[in-house]
Amino acid sequence: MKLATLKDGSRDGQLLIVSRDLKTAVIATNIAPTLQDVLDSWDFMAPQCEDLYVQLNQGRAPNSFDFDPTQCMSPLPRAYQFADASAYVDFVDLIARSRKDEIPDFFWSEPLIHQAASDDFLGPCDDILVASEAFGIDVESEIAVIIDDVKMGATPQQAAESIRLVMLANDVSLRELMQTEMIKKFGFLNSKPSTSFSPVAVTPDELADAWEKGKLHLPLRTSIKGKLVGAPNAGVDMTFSFPQLIAHLVKTRNAKAGTIIGSGTVFNKEGSKGNSSIFATRAAEIIAHGDATTPYLQFGDVVKIEMLDKNGKSIFGAIEQKIEQAE
Amino acid sequence: MKLATLKDGSRDGQLLIVSRDLKTAVIATNIAPTLQDVLDSWDFMAPQCEDLYVQLNQGRAPNSFDFDPTQCMSPLPRAYQFADASAYVDFVDLIARSRKDEIPDFFWSEPLIHQAASDDFLGPCDDILVASEAFGIDVESEIAVIIDDVKMGATPQQAAESIRLVMLANDVSLRELMQTEMIKKFGFLNSKPSTSFSPVAVTPDELADAWEKGKLHLPLRTSIKGKLVGAPNAGVDMTFSFPQLIAHLVKTRNAKAGTIIGSGTVFNKEGSKGNSSIFATRAAEIIAHGDATTPYLQFGDVVKIEMLDKNGKSIFGAIEQKIEQAE
Repeated sequence: MKLATLKDGSRDGQLLIVSRDLKTAVIATNIAPTLQDVLDSWDFMAPQCEDLYVQLNQGRAPNSFDFDPTQCMSPLPRAYQFADASAYVDFVDLIARSRKDEIPDFFWSEPLIHQAASDDFLGPCDDILVASEAFGIDVESEIAVIIDDVKMGATPQQAAESIRLVMLANDVSLRELMQTEMIKKFGFLNSKPSTSFSPVAVTPDELADAWEKGKLHLPLRTSIKGKLVGAPNAGVDMTFSFPQLIAHLVKTRNAKAGTIIGSGTVFNKEGSKGNSSIFATRAAEIIAHGDATTPYLQFGDVVKIEMLDKNGKSIFGAIEQKIEQAE
Repeated sequence: MKLATLKDGSRDGQLLIVSRDLKTAVIATNIAPTLQDVLDSWDFMAPQCEDLYVQLNQGRAPNSFDFDPTQCMSPLPRAYQFADASAYVDFVDLIARSRKDEIPDFFWSEPLIHQAASDDFLGPCDDILVASEAFGIDVESEIAVIIDDVKMGATPQQAAESIRLVMLANDVSLRELMQTEMIKKFGFLNSKPSTSFSPVAVTPDELADAWEKGKLHLPLRTSIKGKLVGAPNAGVDMTFSFPQLIAHLVKTRNAKAGTIIGSGTVFNKEGSKGNSSIFATRAAEIIAHGDATTPYLQFGDVVKIEMLDKNGKSIFGAIEQKIEQAE
């Protein structure tokens, strides 16, 4: 099924069930007010949502209306945890090489994951407000999953059972603020402003055989100013699957329902499909020519992130955001 | 006023109003079910809680009962954000010097803050479960505040107005896992298991003149196995006040109501009052004698963290936790 959250002026919005073709939606009033409520009691609530989803797809759901992604918050407008990985290690390696550096060998066997902010996600079509273009504004197109409770010490096999929903993410990054934060070794704070997620979150069964072994095997399309700049396959070169990332996260503590795990910038080593971040493109330019020529985002630029199924239909709806100057 | 959260089997527990002397409590049924609900609408809900607090202190609150910290969850059992600082920069400097390293000058002018996990806090008297003593189990006694909404770009003066509640924290750390995570530069993940907070969160007015310019000027008492190991004054050597920490957090994005900001290990440069972490004691030993002799925590050890007012009365109740082996 496909779930979304309608803007209603409240902090958590209203839970929507969205039709498979993303054309219609219905408020899940009688089931649960918010998506977090569903995640808190998934086994009890999800089957009720599923029933309504079936009715909606058959055109039988009362009070359905046209689905409008611009009226959506992120599926979880705020979450209790967002753990964002860098699961495509070839991308980390590329960045290191562009700085004439190299990554330690253990980066290939132990995931990089940072705790990210989760108190104020942007809606999929909300403007991205940044104080200055000099911050080096960049997109990071990612896959993200939302999980149920996972106990400390869970194996990847156990963790795989906890994946409830899949989304796309735009993990907006401010590259010029990142250098200072890397010196601090405390992770990313100012360099990672609010993230946004796709209009709908979908259960893995919606992805059919594109969802395999905890990876999503379809191209992730990123456009900037209307031009497609990247469509790498998210299932290729993902060094760590989502179950492996989750198992790493819970090595020393539990993770609770509603935790979001991000894949990090989707990246294919074979570069013909373009990139999911300007950072990657610039790093490749530095390695090839000695300097980077592709500029970071400017005020007014629009970024679009989408994934199409094998029939060319949008699965998650599009993240489509304009960069605007913060007051 | 003083607020707490009663264990009731649910994820968020039940909001309690606790008397100033920590002897009695009452469920805030008719006001709000949870502390996050109060924080989401502070201006509307807090005065109602305050009224009940006055009644309780006067012995007039119906259905009040004996307050029992062991029946408490952390005041916020889960939160949408926990941003934990290292605001006592002399502590960071001590650790660096024990490694024959030095900190960059800008650490004294720009705060160190890391995004920390916030989906699964421990109760103030819950056991701390760790898989192995070899992880280097340590306490970190801290001060923490809970804030209201703060807009991107807020000044320290504006941020000061957002501080709603003050707590103590035990930011449990696994020191032997920290080295690898420092190489990753992605912040702390496995090395920071679940944090716990004091039984009650108090409004700043409860601290009277001990709360000044966004710092809490009282000794923070840490005991291990019944022995007081540290009582540094939390208002001394705090390089960055809470308003300064909050202003740094919101440089590139908003922070939302219910965000917790931690001070980092409370530390006084003049070492006669002992330490709030074994890490600090060991670093001082290394600098003085070449090696560390104080061991990290063992299974069965009990850690207690408390703050007394000028009359020797506990303000927040005590965090009192036993280290136990995880299954």
